[in-house]
Amino acid sequence: MNNDIDTIFKKPRRGSQHRSKPGTAPGTLVVHPDLASQPVKVSVIAFSEAELFENTINNLDELAPLLEKYPATWVNICGLGDIDLLSKLTTMFNLNSLAMEDVVNVHQRPKVEEYDDIFFAVAYEPELIKNELDMQQISMFWGKKFVLTFQEHASDCFVPLVTRIKHGGKRTRLLQTEYLAYAVLDTIIDNFFPVIDAYGTHLDDIEEDAIDNASTVVISKIHAFKHNLHLLRRAAWDQREAMASFRELAVASDSDLRFFIRDCEDHTIQIIDILESYRERTSGLMDIYLSSVNNRTNRIMKVLTIVASTFMPIGVIAGIYGMNFDRASPWNLPELSWKYGYEYFWCLALLVASSMLITFWRKGWFKH
Amino acid sequence: MNNDIDTIFKKPRRGSQHRSKPGTAPGTLVVHPDLASQPVKVSVIAFSEAELFENTINNLDELAPLLEKYPATWVNICGLGDIDLLSKLTTMFNLNSLAMEDVVNVHQRPKVEEYDDIFFAVAYEPELIKNELDMQQISMFWGKKFVLTFQEHASDCFVPLVTRIKHGGKRTRLLQTEYLAYAVLDTIIDNFFPVIDAYGTHLDDIEEDAIDNASTVVISKIHAFKHNLHLLRRAAWDQREAMASFRELAVASDSDLRFFIRDCEDHTIQIIDILESYRERTSGLMDIYLSSVNNRTNRIMKVLTIVASTFMPIGVIAGIYGMNFDRASPWNLPELSWKYGYEYFWCLALLVASSMLITFWRKGWFKH
Amino acid sequence: MNNDIDTIFKKPRRGSQHRSKPGTAPGTLVVHPDLASQPVKVSVIAFSEAELFENTINNLDELAPLLEKYPATWVNICGLGDIDLLSKLTTMFNLNSLAMEDVVNVHQRPKVEEYDDIFFAVAYEPELIKNELDMQQISMFWGKKFVLTFQEHASDCFVPLVTRIKHGGKRTRLLQTEYLAYAVLDTIIDNFFPVIDAYGTHLDDIEEDAIDNASTVVISKIHAFKHNLHLLRRAAWDQREAMASFRELAVASDSDLRFFIRDCEDHTIQIIDILESYRERTSGLMDIYLSSVNNRTNRIMKVLTIVASTFMPIGVIAGIYGMNFDRASPWNLPELSWKYGYEYFWCLALLVASSMLITFWRKGWFKH
Amino acid sequence: MNNDIDTIFKKPRRGSQHRSKPGTAPGTLVVHPDLASQPVKVSVIAFSEAELFENTINNLDELAPLLEKYPATWVNICGLGDIDLLSKLTTMFNLNSLAMEDVVNVHQRPKVEEYDDIFFAVAYEPELIKNELDMQQISMFWGKKFVLTFQEHASDCFVPLVTRIKHGGKRTRLLQTEYLAYAVLDTIIDNFFPVIDAYGTHLDDIEEDAIDNASTVVISKIHAFKHNLHLLRRAAWDQREAMASFRELAVASDSDLRFFIRDCEDHTIQIIDILESYRERTSGLMDIYLSSVNNRTNRIMKVLTIVASTFMPIGVIAGIYGMNFDRASPWNLPELSWKYGYEYFWCLALLVASSMLITFWRKGWFKH
Amino acid sequence: MNNDIDTIFKKPRRGSQHRSKPGTAPGTLVVHPDLASQPVKVSVIAFSEAELFENTINNLDELAPLLEKYPATWVNICGLGDIDLLSKLTTMFNLNSLAMEDVVNVHQRPKVEEYDDIFFAVAYEPELIKNELDMQQISMFWGKKFVLTFQEHASDCFVPLVTRIKHGGKRTRLLQTEYLAYAVLDTIIDNFFPVIDAYGTHLDDIEEDAIDNASTVVISKIHAFKHNLHLLRRAAWDQREAMASFRELAVASDSDLRFFIRDCEDHTIQIIDILESYRERTSGLMDIYLSSVNNRTNRIMKVLTIVASTFMPIGVIAGIYGMNFDRASPWNLPELSWKYGYEYFWCLALLVASSMLITFWRKGWFKH
Repeated sequence: MNNDIDTIFKKPRRGSQHRSKPGTAPGTLVVHPDLASQPVKVSVIAFSEAELFENTINNLDELAPLLEKYPATWVNICGLGDIDLLSKLTTMFNLNSLAMEDVVNVHQRPKVEEYDDIFFAVAYEPELIKNELDMQQISMFWGKKFVLTFQEHASDCFVPLVTRIKHGGKRTRLLQTEYLAYAVLDTIIDNFFPVIDAYGTHLDDIEEDAIDNASTVVISKIHAFKHNLHLLRRAAWDQREAMASFRELAVASDSDLRFFIRDCEDHTIQIIDILESYRERTSGLMDIYLSSVNNRTNRIMKVLTIVASTFMPIGVIAGIYGMNFDRASPWNLPELSWKYGYEYFWCLALLVASSMLITFWRKGWFKH
Repeated sequence: MNNDIDTIFKKPRRGSQHRSKPGTAPGTLVVHPDLASQPVKVSVIAFSEAELFENTINNLDELAPLLEKYPATWVNICGLGDIDLLSKLTTMFNLNSLAMEDVVNVHQRPKVEEYDDIFFAVAYEPELIKNELDMQQISMFWGKKFVLTFQEHASDCFVPLVTRIKHGGKRTRLLQTEYLAYAVLDTIIDNFFPVIDAYGTHLDDIEEDAIDNASTVVISKIHAFKHNLHLLRRAAWDQREAMASFRELAVASDSDLRFFIRDCEDHTIQIIDILESYRERTSGLMDIYLSSVNNRTNRIMKVLTIVASTFMPIGVIAGIYGMNFDRASPWNLPELSWKYGYEYFWCLALLVASSMLITFWRKGWFKH
Repeated sequence: MNNDIDTIFKKPRRGSQHRSKPGTAPGTLVVHPDLASQPVKVSVIAFSEAELFENTINNLDELAPLLEKYPATWVNICGLGDIDLLSKLTTMFNLNSLAMEDVVNVHQRPKVEEYDDIFFAVAYEPELIKNELDMQQISMFWGKKFVLTFQEHASDCFVPLVTRIKHGGKRTRLLQTEYLAYAVLDTIIDNFFPVIDAYGTHLDDIEEDAIDNASTVVISKIHAFKHNLHLLRRAAWDQREAMASFRELAVASDSDLRFFIRDCEDHTIQIIDILESYRERTSGLMDIYLSSVNNRTNRIMKVLTIVASTFMPIGVIAGIYGMNFDRASPWNLPELSWKYGYEYFWCLALLVASSMLITFWRKGWFKH
Repeated sequence: MNNDIDTIFKKPRRGSQHRSKPGTAPGTLVVHPDLASQPVKVSVIAFSEAELFENTINNLDELAPLLEKYPATWVNICGLGDIDLLSKLTTMFNLNSLAMEDVVNVHQRPKVEEYDDIFFAVAYEPELIKNELDMQQISMFWGKKFVLTFQEHASDCFVPLVTRIKHGGKRTRLLQTEYLAYAVLDTIIDNFFPVIDAYGTHLDDIEEDAIDNASTVVISKIHAFKHNLHLLRRAAWDQREAMASFRELAVASDSDLRFFIRDCEDHTIQIIDILESYRERTSGLMDIYLSSVNNRTNRIMKVLTIVASTFMPIGVIAGIYGMNFDRASPWNLPELSWKYGYEYFWCLALLVASSMLITFWRKGWFKH
Repeated sequence: MNNDIDTIFKKPRRGSQHRSKPGTAPGTLVVHPDLASQPVKVSVIAFSEAELFENTINNLDELAPLLEKYPATWVNICGLGDIDLLSKLTTMFNLNSLAMEDVVNVHQRPKVEEYDDIFFAVAYEPELIKNELDMQQISMFWGKKFVLTFQEHASDCFVPLVTRIKHGGKRTRLLQTEYLAYAVLDTIIDNFFPVIDAYGTHLDDIEEDAIDNASTVVISKIHAFKHNLHLLRRAAWDQREAMASFRELAVASDSDLRFFIRDCEDHTIQIIDILESYRERTSGLMDIYLSSVNNRTNRIMKVLTIVASTFMPIGVIAGIYGMNFDRASPWNLPELSWKYGYEYFWCLALLVASSMLITFWRKGWFKH
């Protein structure tokens, strides 16, 4: 299990920044080869207060009758690889071409914008896929009768919302597209919490590592954590601003929706608060790690000093009694002639060694 | 006693972030299992200028006659586990369901909000329980005739306020619910001071430790202190903003109340000032610790160098006189044949050793 | 003299934060036991353009006739221990009870506030008492005909102002209480400069210490300096804001006073500028100290390495010629039989040692 | 290839800050000798919806008929060395002399300004020339019928734009000079992306180096990277502000152009976001490097300690059995007389050495 | 030459902060003894479009006729020591006494203020005198017909401006005093560029030193550089604000002057940009230095470890063959009896030493 959590720290793969070449005319749709190869899935939920239609469609022409019949139709496009489909949608719903370019060139900033009567939102849905942070751009258009959402790849994030619409969610069905757009954004924002919790647990582990372990892996962990934190924070701050724009744009709507949006904004603030407190905890981690490393240096030095200071004097004494001074003179090395000379040597050696050790013990070098 | 203070630095248990699953409809009350198991206690104080009623009640129906009779009724709910009771209150006092959700999902930001004619406030009451920082969310609703407060768990923080209402507190009884709401918030904010004082004493200790001791425990202490400081600071900053909103919302009230709120805001600013000065002191602590550690490395190195430099030359001299050059030649090791050769050796050895020691002493290595 | 300056760095005694218990009704005057024991001295200066009265009084009743007779009366209360006197003043001059509470609970923020027609100001007067920074809270009320100032303890800061009023200061006498209030604040702010100068000299010393000495005392000095700097900066920033409020409140007054206040604001900005430049210089000091410590480690290591590298090879050579290989074989240790074997050994030893030393000298290890 | 990328980190040559001497009258055109020696090339594209003229001209008089005939004329001056040509242009198009001075004194800040009916813009086009960052100032004037661009030296950045105008770009031809000015700025801003991508790859390399290698070259790399990042960030921030001014100045234009400018602003924000995330990653790199260095110190110390602790005791034992105590006494060095004394010695030596090694192995010193 | 640049880093002498004692009445002119001893020089340039008068005067009475005759008179007072002269000027031109006090109490912040119809400006002119940064306060008053400038000491900064007025500068002569005031400020600001360039070259040197040299002098250099940078930055920021106030105050003037002032503001922004980029480069220097120092520690440790690890084993082997085990037993030290025992020893020793060296070489310890 620890291994699983360890891998959370992986830095996300460098997003293939799908971007048209400098000098291309603005508003040109160019699909990046990576995305082009992925399958595209279009699912539709259309509903009125009484009825509900839900299905996957293959041909956009199936949409026209639904838009006619139901007051609210939600089309979710999963995969951005089909350029024809996107162009068709642009024409069908009269979408702005610059906004459509933003849908395809993922890595946009979260935002809520208005183009005439159609609103456009970009948000990021964080997910931990195999313990690697994946920030998926979700783009959304909504007008009077429709909501269009675009996902980079399949994910389960909309499942609970779909269930809510199908079973019971009266409010959702009544308040129609604007409320539905809010619900989509709210769901995306709520998806931050489990990811943040996982990172919180991971941070606890790193903190313990930094204080106790001081292995080189900790540096990489801290660095990767900081990077992921930065990504989440940036997304959260921008999402907050996006919600604020949404609330302002929704100013004409009924006040209940505004209360809901304010509540959702509060959630983004809470997310930011938690992430800021992570950041504050992380900021000191390198210092902690550094002092752990220095503490280890200290400990190694102590071992060396203790060993050297204990054996060196004994070695010197032994060397002295190995000297070849002429024993003819009684003044030269008289100890060598003593009957208990060897025992005397050992006493001397142990005395010196133990006095050294006692000195170090008094200095507290054996404590930690 | 020192041990008691030492444990102040404990990081607070990671708050069980009671939160409904992503995708849940907003405004749904879900009680976290941890809270559900706790007993719930409802106490009531109802008063007019002349009369006062105080009791613990088991049935919310007992409230209706009190609300009729008295101009001001304060209901304090201690424990958030009883979902039925909370729903009943929501209906009885016509509370907003999103605000009620905030009461249950503790870890909200401090704030003062208005929902139609009912005001909603969230605040944090810090307490040191067994030297561990506990930040309890206290939520409050107030309307024309009632004040509702919600505590996560029992605490003594309202005792002095209740006493003030019972004995003498004329102003409290006259100015009714809005003043009562102010008094509750004021009491909560005043509770920061003793906690801050305890942390101030703790910080003094850590500073001394960082300069003198440099044991590894200091790192953990500093880190935990920083974290607790961050929690307190965040709460204080948000509380300050909340008081500012309160003052603005109270703009219609009499000016005396506004003076009181401004005074209370001043207290939050003072709290923030003290916490900022702690932060400023803390910010340099890791550097201090680091240089203490490096200073210790220096001292260890000095011991090693002194020992090595003193004994090595003697060892070398002893080694030289232990060589087996052929004594037939008078040019080979003539010292060995001297009558006082051994004494000469000792003089040489002591000379070398003492000249080394004097050099180091001159360099000031024995000073510290 | 150096010793005197050294002690400037002392951290101020932790202010006995006189504060009523949480839950006390706002506006209650509680005097801290420390203050209660100090003697209280009330001095009065009353003056018109023509006449001047100056004395110390024991009974507040002596004030009434002065207030009648003179257009401007300045009462300076030195010591905050006499609760009765303070209550009497509150009633006599119709002071706000919350403001009066701020007078007694020292450690308020500097501010200028208006309560109906009476103004209230809090400011800090820094002083170096026995080289320890003392920030005394000075509170002031002023109305149409009176100025009341409250000092925590006796100090000389108002002496030059009193002299100015007595001798010559026509402007002071003409412009009356508002100008007098300005003059009091201006005097307090001008008192920052000598203190700041003393700290500037102290900072120069610390900088030299950090680069050259690198003794452990430097850490404490830097830390204490930072703390004192923080106290001064906070006071200066708040004082600046207070002066700005003053200028705005004085908007009805004649423009000359506004020029004077702006000039005084300029002084606070200058103080802040100087303090910020100190802060900027301080911010790098710990880094400097750290690298000094590391440089010393380097030097110690060099000594060890030079000693070890010089003596070890000689020791090894000596050890080799101390071996007991059977001299029967001419291939074993032939050097031992040479006539000038011992001389040869010394040449070898000195060659090795000097080549080592030359290597290190070339590396520049002997330079610093 | 790695070598190529390595050289990206080069700091840009210190821009020859062409600047007139202090005290020169403002608006004086002085060409720096470096620039004066470069050849100047003037290319013209003039077009209406139907027709298009493109050529390089040698004489400015050729411009007059083109300005008459075509609604939009774009003159691109490549090289700033010809003072006469610049003066002629100033008179011909009635350009502001202060703005013209900014064209020649390169290293201006990016900006968009209005002088009467003529607009003036400064922008920076980043390019990697031989892996060295080159920030070329591009200045632009535009009026109702003309666009003038000034480049410091030749570059390919306008090639795709020219192609767009020639082939198909209806919008460009219709919307005339203001749209053309936008297109020029948009092209310049889009040129940031490939440069940023190259630096992103470089940063990945540096991060790995800092963690693993810890060679001294890494410091220079990090430092140079930071510097280049700073240059790019400053240019990007200023460019963003310039686009905002442009949008405001273009307020009278049709809303489509405003949408385009907003889109371009969004691109600058994205550039800033990426650069800020680089900065955030860079900020921790020196810490990482420092702890890598300290970790290496640890490893070196461990080697020394292991070697010393293993051999020293054996040496001491050998020294002991090399002592010359008088063997007459049976108490002196009895081991020397044992039959298997030498074998006993080896057992003792290996025991001591292996117990040392096992101790260190247990401490985990052999792991990394 | 390098030596000259090295001395640039000198910290400026602590400005003798000429300041009247706390409690002095505001507006009192007190000249600092240092300044009083300096000679005072008064030069006058008076001009109309047609005529020009330039001279040094000794008596202020000579001014009256000039003011009568010429529409614009510029009086430059060099030296602030003559209190009588200053008082006379105050009366003569009706200057504000608080502003006059600012002229004498140098170390004011740069600012542009209006006193009735007379404007007052403070600016700083940086100069490198013997490679030491000198920030001279230049104060200026201007009214309808006169410009007064005050310099602390003589400098050449106004020479080119005077030349411009004398020869040709029509604009200067036409636009009169307000333009002249602008020209003075513009000249002062342009004087920043050569100083900044010198510091830029110096910073390049320091960067190289920090990476390569790591001698202790580098710390002092970095610290002094930071300090000077701070002084320049503060002055530049304040000067920018001053220019902004100037532009606002000049709002009534013709738009050309406003263009010029905006251009001059742009220059201050450029100065700030360059200084900020220096700051950014400086901020990482201590880290670089620190890691250089640590890298050197590493290298020293490597030398020690290599020496110790190479010689210690040989020493131990030599010690072993120096043992005195009883050779009677064939099991004791049989190597000693071998014919080629000594050669065998050398082989063993070289094998051990070279295997050690190869190990370290493989670890890359010999590379740097």
